[in-house]
Amino acid sequence: MPVNKIVLIGAGNVATQIGKTLHRKGVKILQVMSRTQKSAENLASMIGAEAISDFSEINRDADLYLISVTDDAISEIISKISPLHGIVAHTSGAVEMDILKGSSKKFGVFYPLQTFSKFKETDFSSIPVCTEASDDETKLALADFASKISNDIRFIDSYQRSQIHLAAVFVNNFTNYMFAIGNKILEKNNIPFDILYPLINETVEKIKHQNPHQAQTGPAIRNDKKVISKHIQMLHDEPKMQKLYQLISEQISKSANPKNK
Amino acid sequence: MPVNKIVLIGAGNVATQIGKTLHRKGVKILQVMSRTQKSAENLASMIGAEAISDFSEINRDADLYLISVTDDAISEIISKISPLHGIVAHTSGAVEMDILKGSSKKFGVFYPLQTFSKFKETDFSSIPVCTEASDDETKLALADFASKISNDIRFIDSYQRSQIHLAAVFVNNFTNYMFAIGNKILEKNNIPFDILYPLINETVEKIKHQNPHQAQTGPAIRNDKKVISKHIQMLHDEPKMQKLYQLISEQISKSANPKNK
Repeated sequence: MPVNKIVLIGAGNVATQIGKTLHRKGVKILQVMSRTQKSAENLASMIGAEAISDFSEINRDADLYLISVTDDAISEIISKISPLHGIVAHTSGAVEMDILKGSSKKFGVFYPLQTFSKFKETDFSSIPVCTEASDDETKLALADFASKISNDIRFIDSYQRSQIHLAAVFVNNFTNYMFAIGNKILEKNNIPFDILYPLINETVEKIKHQNPHQAQTGPAIRNDKKVISKHIQMLHDEPKMQKLYQLISEQISKSANPKNK
Repeated sequence: MPVNKIVLIGAGNVATQIGKTLHRKGVKILQVMSRTQKSAENLASMIGAEAISDFSEINRDADLYLISVTDDAISEIISKISPLHGIVAHTSGAVEMDILKGSSKKFGVFYPLQTFSKFKETDFSSIPVCTEASDDETKLALADFASKISNDIRFIDSYQRSQIHLAAVFVNNFTNYMFAIGNKILEKNNIPFDILYPLINETVEKIKHQNPHQAQTGPAIRNDKKVISKHIQMLHDEPKMQKLYQLISEQISKSANPKNK
């Protein structure tokens, strides 16, 4: 059974980007439901949908109910909208599929592995969509639906998805924090951050051709104690950065040679 | 005085990439000098230069002696080749310019802010080259020389350069380590690492349009204790990753709200 009519539950970054992309692709979005009527209306008005904020008004004829809310809010929503006839799916990286049991006979996961901004348009076509489903028919329906917006559909179970989500925290959230620190160091010294862009670009290009473990360079992997202690000294008025510098350098250094101290 | 004849001291990644680029641009490289004759020959043969490994054989007619060796080796080299008539410059991010005092009347720094691989060809044109010089004439000569291979020449003093180098450790070395951890988590679960590429690309694109501090997303910035403790639990058999996850999450969480614990 093809998925043609959608209800979006949630109006945050993920719902907004999915909604706008589906709308561009001509997929019919019946409703946008959000805790507050206003945020439902914001998104609904952009994608030709009805805005609702009351569970009782939910359209029971949709083929797919896509829940894009904070992890903690999923159970409560399920308890209020069940039972439904269409497929019920959430978009979370961290939440098990089985939380949706009882919401409908057909349920699953539609997890786009990307970081979304509310205002920056997302090109979905190359974003890996991790799908999982209660049964084979739903699996095919979700994959078919996903293929309307992405060329990279993957079948990933809840356990693997939680591992991917954990890895994503390191490569996205924590990497961004490294960028924030680099930015702060330069700002303090009135050096424009863009001087680091070519280096950052190459850092990313390298690991597409080489295992990141092998691509590691810098004072820590060389166990260059002179540079390391100079840097730690330079960070004396930034104890948080200093502690982080020390811990990561230690770990990198040990990864090269377990005997390094 | 234009810089036309170069002697490269060192035959590592930086010297190799600079040498090959200069050669392509038609700049005459007189000699490649390295500690071992063989590594000097490897590079020299690619760029039409003479290979030497004995300080006494150094050509005294070069306009520029470019020292690309490990930081600790610079002083020793200076003591053995001084005094020279041409410009003496090093390519280090961390070493002060004044280490070159006495090597020649004209000295300076030529620091390409990039991570180099020996075997991957480097496109120098957009790499920021941080230059610094003993005097104005040398400054212009070095900038003119740098402009043969890059379109992004910056005048940066030793103090600023050391700050840039420190920032580079965070955005390059430490970021790469985050990628290595992400890779390791996926490898353990038989998930191909390329599933993370679109996310990694977007992580980098975001900070070109938004301050990285504002671009921060994820469980830590939301202070989502449930996901954080789930992740920490998932890392129970990887105590190093676990410690790192904990420290970075703590810092991100506090950066959003200093009262978070």
